[in-house]
Amino acid sequence: MSFFLKLISVSEAKAKIREIAGETYPQKVTLSEAYDRVLASDVLSDADVPGFSRSIVDGYAVVSKDTTGAGESIPTMLEYLGRVEMGTPAQIKLTPGTCAYVPTGGNVPDGADAVAMVEYSEALGDEVLIFRPMSNGENIVFADEDFAKGSPVMKKGTTLKPQECGVLASLGKEEVEVFKKPVIGIISTGNELVPVSKEPGFGKVRDVNTYLCSGFVKRCGCIPKIYGVIPDERDELREAIRLATEECDAVLISGGSSKDERDNTSSIIKELGEVLIHGIAISPGKPTIIGTATGKPVIGLPGHPASAYIVLYVLVSELLYKMQMKAVTNNTITTTLLENIPSAQGREDYVRVKLSDDGAKPLYAKSGLLNTLIKSDGMVKIPSGSEGLEAGSLVEVILW
Amino acid sequence: MSFFLKLISVSEAKAKIREIAGETYPQKVTLSEAYDRVLASDVLSDADVPGFSRSIVDGYAVVSKDTTGAGESIPTMLEYLGRVEMGTPAQIKLTPGTCAYVPTGGNVPDGADAVAMVEYSEALGDEVLIFRPMSNGENIVFADEDFAKGSPVMKKGTTLKPQECGVLASLGKEEVEVFKKPVIGIISTGNELVPVSKEPGFGKVRDVNTYLCSGFVKRCGCIPKIYGVIPDERDELREAIRLATEECDAVLISGGSSKDERDNTSSIIKELGEVLIHGIAISPGKPTIIGTATGKPVIGLPGHPASAYIVLYVLVSELLYKMQMKAVTNNTITTTLLENIPSAQGREDYVRVKLSDDGAKPLYAKSGLLNTLIKSDGMVKIPSGSEGLEAGSLVEVILW
Repeated sequence: MSFFLKLISVSEAKAKIREIAGETYPQKVTLSEAYDRVLASDVLSDADVPGFSRSIVDGYAVVSKDTTGAGESIPTMLEYLGRVEMGTPAQIKLTPGTCAYVPTGGNVPDGADAVAMVEYSEALGDEVLIFRPMSNGENIVFADEDFAKGSPVMKKGTTLKPQECGVLASLGKEEVEVFKKPVIGIISTGNELVPVSKEPGFGKVRDVNTYLCSGFVKRCGCIPKIYGVIPDERDELREAIRLATEECDAVLISGGSSKDERDNTSSIIKELGEVLIHGIAISPGKPTIIGTATGKPVIGLPGHPASAYIVLYVLVSELLYKMQMKAVTNNTITTTLLENIPSAQGREDYVRVKLSDDGAKPLYAKSGLLNTLIKSDGMVKIPSGSEGLEAGSLVEVILW
Repeated sequence: MSFFLKLISVSEAKAKIREIAGETYPQKVTLSEAYDRVLASDVLSDADVPGFSRSIVDGYAVVSKDTTGAGESIPTMLEYLGRVEMGTPAQIKLTPGTCAYVPTGGNVPDGADAVAMVEYSEALGDEVLIFRPMSNGENIVFADEDFAKGSPVMKKGTTLKPQECGVLASLGKEEVEVFKKPVIGIISTGNELVPVSKEPGFGKVRDVNTYLCSGFVKRCGCIPKIYGVIPDERDELREAIRLATEECDAVLISGGSSKDERDNTSSIIKELGEVLIHGIAISPGKPTIIGTATGKPVIGLPGHPASAYIVLYVLVSELLYKMQMKAVTNNTITTTLLENIPSAQGREDYVRVKLSDDGAKPLYAKSGLLNTLIKSDGMVKIPSGSEGLEAGSLVEVILW
């Protein structure tokens, strides 16, 4: 007796999710909002950067040939022509036998081809001693050396880390074209649920999945839009799903996990669009629904929070990252499994584990319990072709 | 000839930074804002969760002893008393020889001590066949089994991941006491700098460090407050530092990196507070200043963005995480070093590397260049007591 005629493999489910993830739209943001966003178009340099020959040290601009053979005991003596001020073009022009002081970042005067650090020089009134031979180009960044005008700097799809934001600043990109952050609608349904603000009467429990899902949506860089607890009545639930799929880029619906409720969710999705997958060879998470409604991706999650969480990690993450043109990334750690984990072949099992210095210990618990969710450090995957994992073997733990 | 009389070791600098990080204040946020925040107080359960005996499957509540010896060929036959509705107290009371239907999440009736899954049962009008022996407590979560009233659930200092947000919802915590997000003031100084919005004239460059720092501050979970480019004039810079240290929880100042400018920043900090460290045995990053002004931590960063970035990662991260009561965490990967990296003893060297399938290749570049910042994938640390790392050795790459 199974509710599901045919279980779909996790990899097929992931492929279907990527297929329905839909278009991603660009938007412009200011550079100060650009951190951690994803570039929607290539970035070229509009000009040479830094745009002028710049010293990277405090020191004396010189003609490098003048310093050939210079050393601690036989310094080169050069005529001192003056000082270049920061932020202004050098007014000085060097000829062989002369030098000028340049601060770090200052313009290297015409005629100079190296800057000797102050540490290797000594000022003597109108003259300067240089104690080291300099090579052509030493301690200078040339006008187009960082980014030449018209050259490609960053590719579409780049996630903007702090250093990319810094480089965009150097290129004068006050605004940046990034992909819009997907807005993900979150619906919890079930007649046993009350919102967090309410005292649950006997027989009811507070809605956990709204906060589980909204935290996860934020973790993946998207914006959650909470629709709250919707009674598991056909009209109310249909109206909520219709509204959420109109207002959002994708919708997560977690139901109470009884058979009747699942059927309600699935038949409403059918009415508003299409149920593509119902029943996946994953444990926990078998009753997961993948479909579209009002043209938007919809994922129906199990009602048990601990099961819903595995489905968020394994399947929903595919949707949320694809919608931002990012690859799914997880933090993992490889460690020793401390107990055998048996598994049924033909499904992918995910078992929560607790880490210690010795390794990873599986945490088994009744599926309705929340406490193992916060006691565990991550999960271990048992592939569908495996009968389980043996104590002592090395396993990859996907960290929460 | 060194500007710095005494270089402080990186570990001493980190200890000093943690020392000045200062108090962290609690604030209340709503649960939907709580994701990724840090708990400022322990969380206890105010009530038993789930609060009533709950079935974790769809099936028949039974008296387990009735099913002793049940099997596929010799099922136990029980009298069917009716159905428990979701979200309401069970109105039925079981006696030996009877059963009642309970949906997943429904209240298990008094008298029952197990729930047999529908998969292992068959309804026959007024009677139900159970095909498996059930044990006491099977498929039931008891009233206080998840969290008992008064029991500790989460500790002060816990970072709220999605699952912690879910559990807080189950406990009815509409508001959560978390540590205030530190506001970090960001000042760029240097007469060669223009804001990103301006065309730099010859001899000037755009301010990179403001965006490098503000992205990094966000990455560490803090709020950047940008003060922009401040001319390297004593009065203006002092006024900016005074204002920023008054308005923010800590301040980052990155100067042009010439000697004169560093001296300006350092002497203003001295005037408004104390310079605790000036000169650290780290490369790049030697001229870093650590101090306090107006009672707030202040860090003076090198002007070269590539140097500033190393100091952000190695030292400023200590400040930003400590201010949130978090431990510094980095993503690392262990791989083969592809080229020798020589290093001077007595200082910690950080060398940017580019990763490939073969391993990590050091990226050397003139310190004034930005492009290696975005070409590198992370950095390798060479400890202060080492003369360098050999090609072929395994190294830990700290990923950006």
